[in-house]
Amino acid sequence: MKDFAGTPGTLTGLFLRIMQCVFAALTISCVVSTKDFFNYTAFCYLIASMGLQVAWSFGLALLDAYALIKKKVLHNPGLVSLFVVGDWVTATLALAAASASAGITVLFFNDLGHCHFRRECDRFQLSVAFAFFSWITIAISSLIMLWLLAAG
Amino acid sequence: MKDFAGTPGTLTGLFLRIMQCVFAALTISCVVSTKDFFNYTAFCYLIASMGLQVAWSFGLALLDAYALIKKKVLHNPGLVSLFVVGDWVTATLALAAASASAGITVLFFNDLGHCHFRRECDRFQLSVAFAFFSWITIAISSLIMLWLLAAG
Repeated sequence: MKDFAGTPGTLTGLFLRIMQCVFAALTISCVVSTKDFFNYTAFCYLIASMGLQVAWSFGLALLDAYALIKKKVLHNPGLVSLFVVGDWVTATLALAAASASAGITVLFFNDLGHCHFRRECDRFQLSVAFAFFSWITIAISSLIMLWLLAAG
Repeated sequence: MKDFAGTPGTLTGLFLRIMQCVFAALTISCVVSTKDFFNYTAFCYLIASMGLQVAWSFGLALLDAYALIKKKVLHNPGLVSLFVVGDWVTATLALAAASASAGITVLFFNDLGHCHFRRECDRFQLSVAFAFFSWITIAISSLIMLWLLAAG
């Protein structure tokens, strides 16, 4: 197995996990600060998906921090396989949730020509943007993990 | 490089490419058979994404068929890198387009409690289902290609 930037137990790996957590938490906080998100299946799904993302990335961030402090190398094939499956599942769910929410946001802002949530409109747009940022960081982690497993 | 099911120039590879083409073409035909799809950005994006999918998969299907007939092995690292990039771009676009359309379909059918397209509702639902089938087949191809590149 190779030891390059972004693999488990490196500083870049830890940074990626923390960014995933932060963006997912920002998405959830934007959505739950609106009054009627629960009327929209896509935004409920976005919260579920980002909740899973926070739990997964936080767990792996702790593991990365532990490996960094103890100077351990986390390149056990069984462990990397687990990371790959988890990363791919969360990345796919995150992209699907972000796209579904973006579809609805574009429908309201562009296709129907107005947004009827008034001041809450910005929060829905912001939540979609944060969800896409979260997906970008988890996609980078997923590609690195799959590469690590295949090259191992 | 390894020679396993689904790699370029194998029968399973050709079958995957043909299925991608068929599902993407079915999605486009379902959407364009409705009268007012162009009012919805998500469905326009779905057509663009599936159009790209048809072009890409048809080209690779022809290449696979040529390799099968001439009994050539298409495991050149440069060629595989090109397949990986193309597959990942089309797979990401296909999932985003399918999810955005699904978000809008769920909004109409579930959240708003009714669909105001009458007989065309079924076609929108069908198009989303076909788009997800198309994404599943391209996702399988993408994983195989990335594995092939990393293991090479």
